[in-house]
Amino acid sequence: MSDSSTDLAEKAAGLDAADELAKQRELFALTVSDHAADAAGVVYLDGNSLGALPRHVPERMADVITREWGELRIRSWTESGWWTAPERIGDRIAPLVGAAPGQIVVGDSTSVNVFKALVAAVRMAGDDRDEIVVDATTFPTDGYIAESAARLTGRRLVPVAPAELPTALGPRTAAALVNHVDYRTGRLHDLPALTTAVHEAGALAVWDLCHSAGALPVGLDAHGVDLAVGCTYKYLNGGPGAPAYLYVAERHQDRFDSPLPGWNSHADPFAMASGFTAADGAVRGRVGTPDILSMLALEAALDVWDGVSVEAVRAKSLALTDFFLECVEAYVPDGRVTSLTPRAHAERGSQVALSCEGAPAVMEALIARGVVGDLRRPDVLRFGFTPLYVGFADTERAARVLAEVLTEAHG
Amino acid sequence: MSDSSTDLAEKAAGLDAADELAKQRELFALTVSDHAADAAGVVYLDGNSLGALPRHVPERMADVITREWGELRIRSWTESGWWTAPERIGDRIAPLVGAAPGQIVVGDSTSVNVFKALVAAVRMAGDDRDEIVVDATTFPTDGYIAESAARLTGRRLVPVAPAELPTALGPRTAAALVNHVDYRTGRLHDLPALTTAVHEAGALAVWDLCHSAGALPVGLDAHGVDLAVGCTYKYLNGGPGAPAYLYVAERHQDRFDSPLPGWNSHADPFAMASGFTAADGAVRGRVGTPDILSMLALEAALDVWDGVSVEAVRAKSLALTDFFLECVEAYVPDGRVTSLTPRAHAERGSQVALSCEGAPAVMEALIARGVVGDLRRPDVLRFGFTPLYVGFADTERAARVLAEVLTEAHG
Repeated sequence: MSDSSTDLAEKAAGLDAADELAKQRELFALTVSDHAADAAGVVYLDGNSLGALPRHVPERMADVITREWGELRIRSWTESGWWTAPERIGDRIAPLVGAAPGQIVVGDSTSVNVFKALVAAVRMAGDDRDEIVVDATTFPTDGYIAESAARLTGRRLVPVAPAELPTALGPRTAAALVNHVDYRTGRLHDLPALTTAVHEAGALAVWDLCHSAGALPVGLDAHGVDLAVGCTYKYLNGGPGAPAYLYVAERHQDRFDSPLPGWNSHADPFAMASGFTAADGAVRGRVGTPDILSMLALEAALDVWDGVSVEAVRAKSLALTDFFLECVEAYVPDGRVTSLTPRAHAERGSQVALSCEGAPAVMEALIARGVVGDLRRPDVLRFGFTPLYVGFADTERAARVLAEVLTEAHG
Repeated sequence: MSDSSTDLAEKAAGLDAADELAKQRELFALTVSDHAADAAGVVYLDGNSLGALPRHVPERMADVITREWGELRIRSWTESGWWTAPERIGDRIAPLVGAAPGQIVVGDSTSVNVFKALVAAVRMAGDDRDEIVVDATTFPTDGYIAESAARLTGRRLVPVAPAELPTALGPRTAAALVNHVDYRTGRLHDLPALTTAVHEAGALAVWDLCHSAGALPVGLDAHGVDLAVGCTYKYLNGGPGAPAYLYVAERHQDRFDSPLPGWNSHADPFAMASGFTAADGAVRGRVGTPDILSMLALEAALDVWDGVSVEAVRAKSLALTDFFLECVEAYVPDGRVTSLTPRAHAERGSQVALSCEGAPAVMEALIARGVVGDLRRPDVLRFGFTPLYVGFADTERAARVLAEVLTEAHG
């Protein structure tokens, strides 16, 4: 071990000792996997793709399946609170994204929620506004769905880089759809300023929070966001494909006109009326029967946030990504990787993306040595830092193993 | 016990003894619930709303949660087959509804799938066909979603009773959406004849199979159905809110133009391309990240169909509903209930609906005595007969308890 790695390992130990969130790690199942070549176990830096399992979820789900489904059966829709789960769990997510209760409903995938939000936004904006502006660097599904929403509502799609967004806004803009954090580079976009710019153009701001919720403060209410969507299986640890959520600001709820008015969004679902009358409130964003097993796993998983402040999470997240960049700089030979993630804290989410020649083989070697990040083709190594269960020693080790892999590969 | 009840109880015992499907009951968790006032346990006649729990599902789900999510984490998308689950499980459902492989994909709710199917059907039908005909007696969500599809595609919605359907079809018809079995009355509609009538008008037939799949043969391929949707939590026992499915006949797949083109339906999802190119085959019906926990519970639940023929299920279903009607006629005082379910086998699904004065209180009393059906407001008692786990003695008991409740209530 070089002097620098001894120093950085010591620094990591100090940072871990002072970390007020360190105790949260015990809430997660992070045992040594049979996969880890290294006896130190896995460093899981892919929680920005699939969050780790909170330890108590299996027991809760065994009860949901065996007792609520198996014994109570149909009675559980009322007696086990299944029917109201979408809005109840929405209210659990609300404080994590800066929303007052009654504005978030959980259900469907992020893609489906982007569709609801954009069509509803276009309808609220009125017929004289015929453009939907969309972040051109967005996660692709948002762009595909925005194109479909534009086609079905007779609007024109205007793709722009987020930095150019203000120049694309105007009297024709109905809505703008932007990712809070770029899924590839980890760049954090300026939600307050862009929302203000959208509002100054008289349009509605729709935010995709997939890569920010649970990693940093969002402030939906404080910044006057109109509509937002997000997934729950990344920093919120809801489980694979856990249902997404939809935020509809209270001031817009009466005019929220969903393109997917399923029976769950009806004012009186069990009247089984042939005509549709929308429910009041966030419930209007529901569609069909909610996927209870996935939904209740998410609800249980949210317990790990009890007593945790999002501000503390953000502070640790920035400390982790700062430290990772410091270690990479110290260990990795010059010129072998280039960070795509901004240095400025105000522009950084909770991941570090490194462009790297031969990235697929490098990521494969990292995973074989117990450092799990992921690859974004063709050449991006992506490392997600989840403050609830990643520590500074993990971070130092990840950078050290990366340096070893790169040194061995090209000697 | 009256003579007639002794006779019918004996008849039930004989029918149960001769029932080749009787052994399937052991595959389900149907233990005595704390809820049952009667030591004989619960007669569960609400499997047409939420199917009972197959006994092996809890163990399978414990493995999915603890090992696949908890230990393998992100690797499970490939190593545990999560990514291909929607089409793999679709192929498990296919033989139950008479479809060759490669035409069914699982995911999203029934409502969302109705939307995909109808918009795609309208697009295939072409611009000169401006009407969507919809079963006016349908489960309400289908009507609400059809109205939204009509509004977004600039078509006119034409609601008709299924019997009148042929008269509503014409050169302006783009598509017709019909329920195979009416959720309220249990009436089975003539899928082959109505599909033919729709085709003769040059339109596409979209069938909702929620109340038929798993209860009777559907014959999607044999009858040339164009598109179909269905849920999986009724006769398919997939669990509360288990994902729905979408059938796109192979001959239409190349032209299937989804209004919800999420990244999971892209030809190369991990290219993360900014432009959308639809995948080949049924995969084109996918949208966003699938809800893995709910989906894998469904996959496990489908094991109870191994070695079971849908024809045998249909024969037992008709025998059960015949026998229930016979017992109701023998036990219940004249005029207290009226069956809304057709006598003719060709017009009957797998439930019996009885209109009854004071139905809410009657259903409450039935449930208190361990006979679980459900209520459809204002006055319908609904009893679902699931041939894999309901027997003839259950059926006789249900009718007998119904008669007791009605006799005590009104003397």
